[in-house]
Amino acid sequence: MAASLPTSASASATATDHVFNVERHDELQLSPEDRKRITERTKWVLDSPDPPSFRQEILGSIKNVVCSQKNKKRNSSQPQLAWVVAFLHSVFPMLSWARDYKASMFKDDLLAGLTLASLCIPQSIGYAALAQLNPQYGLYTSVVPPLIYTTMGTSRELAIGPVAVVSLLISAMVSKVVNPVVDPVSYTKLVFTVTFFTGTFQALFGLFRLGFLVDFLSQAAIVGFMAGAAIVIGLQQLKGLLAISHFTTKTDVVSVLLAVAKSFRTSWYPQNFILGCSFLIFILITRFIGKRNRKLFWLPAIAPLVSVVLSTAIVFLTRADEHGVTIIKHVKGGLNPSSVDQLQFNSPHLRESVKIGLVCAVIALTEAVAVGRSFATIKGYNMDGNKEMIAMGFMNIAGSMSSCYVATGSFSRTAVNFFAGCQTAVSNVVMAITVLLMLQFLTGLLYYTPVAILSSIILSALPGLINYTEAYNIWKVDKLDFLACAGAFFGVLFASVEMGLMVAIAISFAKIILNALRPRVQELGRLPGTDIFCEVDQYPVAQAVPSVLIIRLNSGLLCFTNANPLRDRILNWVAEENKKKDIKRPINGIILDMSSVTNIDYAGTLALEETNKKLLSGGIKLAIASPRWQVIHKLKVAKFVDKVGRDCIFLTVCEAVDSFVGSKFTGPANC
Amino acid sequence: MAASLPTSASASATATDHVFNVERHDELQLSPEDRKRITERTKWVLDSPDPPSFRQEILGSIKNVVCSQKNKKRNSSQPQLAWVVAFLHSVFPMLSWARDYKASMFKDDLLAGLTLASLCIPQSIGYAALAQLNPQYGLYTSVVPPLIYTTMGTSRELAIGPVAVVSLLISAMVSKVVNPVVDPVSYTKLVFTVTFFTGTFQALFGLFRLGFLVDFLSQAAIVGFMAGAAIVIGLQQLKGLLAISHFTTKTDVVSVLLAVAKSFRTSWYPQNFILGCSFLIFILITRFIGKRNRKLFWLPAIAPLVSVVLSTAIVFLTRADEHGVTIIKHVKGGLNPSSVDQLQFNSPHLRESVKIGLVCAVIALTEAVAVGRSFATIKGYNMDGNKEMIAMGFMNIAGSMSSCYVATGSFSRTAVNFFAGCQTAVSNVVMAITVLLMLQFLTGLLYYTPVAILSSIILSALPGLINYTEAYNIWKVDKLDFLACAGAFFGVLFASVEMGLMVAIAISFAKIILNALRPRVQELGRLPGTDIFCEVDQYPVAQAVPSVLIIRLNSGLLCFTNANPLRDRILNWVAEENKKKDIKRPINGIILDMSSVTNIDYAGTLALEETNKKLLSGGIKLAIASPRWQVIHKLKVAKFVDKVGRDCIFLTVCEAVDSFVGSKFTGPANC
Repeated sequence: MAASLPTSASASATATDHVFNVERHDELQLSPEDRKRITERTKWVLDSPDPPSFRQEILGSIKNVVCSQKNKKRNSSQPQLAWVVAFLHSVFPMLSWARDYKASMFKDDLLAGLTLASLCIPQSIGYAALAQLNPQYGLYTSVVPPLIYTTMGTSRELAIGPVAVVSLLISAMVSKVVNPVVDPVSYTKLVFTVTFFTGTFQALFGLFRLGFLVDFLSQAAIVGFMAGAAIVIGLQQLKGLLAISHFTTKTDVVSVLLAVAKSFRTSWYPQNFILGCSFLIFILITRFIGKRNRKLFWLPAIAPLVSVVLSTAIVFLTRADEHGVTIIKHVKGGLNPSSVDQLQFNSPHLRESVKIGLVCAVIALTEAVAVGRSFATIKGYNMDGNKEMIAMGFMNIAGSMSSCYVATGSFSRTAVNFFAGCQTAVSNVVMAITVLLMLQFLTGLLYYTPVAILSSIILSALPGLINYTEAYNIWKVDKLDFLACAGAFFGVLFASVEMGLMVAIAISFAKIILNALRPRVQELGRLPGTDIFCEVDQYPVAQAVPSVLIIRLNSGLLCFTNANPLRDRILNWVAEENKKKDIKRPINGIILDMSSVTNIDYAGTLALEETNKKLLSGGIKLAIASPRWQVIHKLKVAKFVDKVGRDCIFLTVCEAVDSFVGSKFTGPANC
Repeated sequence: MAASLPTSASASATATDHVFNVERHDELQLSPEDRKRITERTKWVLDSPDPPSFRQEILGSIKNVVCSQKNKKRNSSQPQLAWVVAFLHSVFPMLSWARDYKASMFKDDLLAGLTLASLCIPQSIGYAALAQLNPQYGLYTSVVPPLIYTTMGTSRELAIGPVAVVSLLISAMVSKVVNPVVDPVSYTKLVFTVTFFTGTFQALFGLFRLGFLVDFLSQAAIVGFMAGAAIVIGLQQLKGLLAISHFTTKTDVVSVLLAVAKSFRTSWYPQNFILGCSFLIFILITRFIGKRNRKLFWLPAIAPLVSVVLSTAIVFLTRADEHGVTIIKHVKGGLNPSSVDQLQFNSPHLRESVKIGLVCAVIALTEAVAVGRSFATIKGYNMDGNKEMIAMGFMNIAGSMSSCYVATGSFSRTAVNFFAGCQTAVSNVVMAITVLLMLQFLTGLLYYTPVAILSSIILSALPGLINYTEAYNIWKVDKLDFLACAGAFFGVLFASVEMGLMVAIAISFAKIILNALRPRVQELGRLPGTDIFCEVDQYPVAQAVPSVLIIRLNSGLLCFTNANPLRDRILNWVAEENKKKDIKRPINGIILDMSSVTNIDYAGTLALEETNKKLLSGGIKLAIASPRWQVIHKLKVAKFVDKVGRDCIFLTVCEAVDSFVGSKFTGPANC
């Protein structure tokens, strides 16, 4: 081996320098063919082409972002008109499926759309109340965004409109800037501005293919956040259910419970509570029936509307509003008015609007993409994440100009839409038109609707946000993930909505850094009767090779955080092994299996060099087995390969062991 | 294969469900022995013992920290007295080597100590000026800390005392809290308090084995920081060299240059500049000679003292101080006075003291450990990082009570100590006693020493802090590391010392997260004539296997940041390959080589599940090859193994390929 590579062998010899007493007995048991083979394979490792450079990688990923859509278009290589058609098809996926749309499909969509509308109308009014807006804004939000989404979105089931969590976010964050009780006009204006920025961020995420930003919120964090938000939203409903006039603007459990306790001391009207609870029980029973019998899916879907109608009738007939039952009173009817002149880009709250817009954009996208993707998987089609984001962005920008607040895909309504048998996004159009008609002609009927009913409708939708099973699965699979989940949950519950999100993101990223920090090394052994070397802890059948220690670095990144501890760990280990083992067969070779290490930095190369130096000074030879592309490239560049010797780099652990054992490499203690 | 594992095969069959049209032609080319072997090995993978649980890992690492020292002592199993002796030996390593100390060694140490003192005295006074303290405090710092370090430290060469970078840190950070010109007494008190906290942090790091915290500053960041600090320190010397009376307290380049430009407009005395520059040239020439001829190492070592003596004599004889040359004037002589009563734990600046103490602790340790370790490696002995930290901690705590500021191991003086042939830390004792004698009897001689000389002595020490070669190596090895290096450099230069540090740490950690973010997958191919599968990009000789796509996940962690993009990437890839490839041989099997993935989180398991579902719906089978310990455990816990089927988990890629190709598994398009 050494003979075939004279230059590198001499380089390694100069590195060994004062440890030249480490004699090489050339009593090779390996045949010349074996030696040739091993050398040949080492050449494969060392003479591999350079990996893409930093500049190339950066340019590549920029190109990827900029050109991915261009290329698609260029591929068509058709005349101008065809190009325009292709472009329109790409921006408005509706054009693709609208041609194949059949009457039978419309029947399904109509039924689904009407079911959806019956659930959507009471929920929209309730969520508007949660967002501390007048009821009509919730209804407006169920008109414009669904219509725009139908033309641009790629999901067929997603039911668009206001949702609980985003309403809570708006209420919690915007009310910190402007008090909605003191100055409702400014508050509403700020909400529209936030909606505009939400849409802008979403569209930008989609245009620049930044969908991965949504992944920054791990599943675990979302589960915890949603559960916490559900409880907070539930507590907020106590206001309506108990008809409390002076409620806190804070959202944490402690503040809300204190506010509730305080209200009991002043006068309160149990009629509200009784009315709300009765209908809550009614809705929950219908849901139970619907779950037992999938054919009766429409029962829980129309239950809220039935509750609204019944309770309104009861209040109207008994004149209960004169005996303490709080009612909605006037709801402004008519079409969505324009709100372009209400967007405020010169206000002193611009910075806050942008910040809240960013948070809402991420949360709204997270919910919509998660819901849309899960139903797309069931039906077996692909949802394009980037197009979804663009669609959501434009629907919210348009919404902000037509008196809507942030809309997104609702989990509960999407499920209803799916079970009602919707075929395409046309069900959203049916729903929007129904809501529009209701806004135009029937708002007067809502005058006597008791507020407590809205609270019970919202309350009934909350259990769907709390996912015990998933939380349990997270606990089983990854304890640190569960910590992020719990962090989000308690953060939302006891601090604030933003704090919960921040805690979850912080824990999630701390987890990644912690993982990169821990210096993990594992001893490898030979699986009996094979050339395969595996971790002895994982595979108890694996047998250690005498006088050679095979160590796998179990870190994806050999970098400044773990390089020095790893070096110390290896050196200590060798020292201990040499103490423990039979003195007649001391460790005289270390094989580092680098197959887990996908990248290395400057500190990593230094640590390997120091390890090599220290081992050599103890008469122990170091070999590197199966280095990855980036790693071997950097080791070559850092001149580590020259220092350790080209003959100490191997394609696999097996060859390194063959070479060590076959060449009978012996340390000074053995001579 | 399926026959031998009926339960799991049926589990996999239920998962495939509606894709049952994927027929299994049982035209096996694999012999029954082969099948048995593969099944046997899959069992090894699946029936491996559970890895240590989260609780066990946490407990293990706590135990490791708490008990590692206890165990050492318990091992001795000797009577009480012996235990005490062992304990004392562990705390005071001096006791171990003091018995073997010989007269011949003392001769070497005496010579080295005296050389050290001749360099240390002018440097200490200069560094005290840099720290905006009176000159005697620099000398004090060269007395107590070295004496304590001698008894507790494990390095034999480290020269203890004030150093340039820490002096700059103190000056830059403490002067922001208390202005040293306006209130020098409070400033000095605050410096002592900071020194106390520095020592406390260092001792705590050592006691709780938190040495890894020092690694948070990557080598790259240190190189950049040191170079930036050297330039900033050099600029600060312009004050002394030009005898500017009103200088800025800021440290960034722009402020300093503006202050210098301003001073030119008022009166300035070129004598200072001429005097300083002449002696700077003298020192640099001696250093050049010393580098050329290693035997003349003492020449650059005593040059600063010679410069001080000569320049003082010149000023005294020519009475140049009356013609504009600024002189030190009175230096308070005598032993270190106690400063216990000057430590301020109730001051309003306590929080700042703690913060500055922490920064100083890390920087001082980083410098000392880096210097100590590099010389220990040359001499081939081990320096115990944790003991070093404890020694540094106690010497600084003691220093803070005896009018010293933060001391650490100096790079330039340690090199002089080494080349002067020191044998043990006794050279530090010799130096300390020399400085003590000088403090007691000779401070009067410093009266006429020109300030410009101190500046030129500091300037002459700076080039050692700027390491071009290492910066170039960093650039070659890792561009992102170089970015951290450049960030630290420019941060120190143009913003502030702390900003530079923070930028470097932020970039370093962003690098880790960026690495975890990028979804990297590589296609594997068979190396000709082997059972080894390698990346086709890295090994152009590798050949793809027809109708099977072998993908390696090149990420150490399959987690929420990269799981979804990875899933999409794989699914897109399969779609593209199926378009590209011969329609007669479409891809019908995907093998995921998980050998690089050392850990997986909940999002990772979900992404794998979704990938499996999507692939199955396209008639493509998914196999997992060589999963690591944590990964296979979590996949089992998350029930992924049951869903994909036990017969789709393989020990190696080779077996998965054998199984796929051998069993002629064919997708629907092929039937």
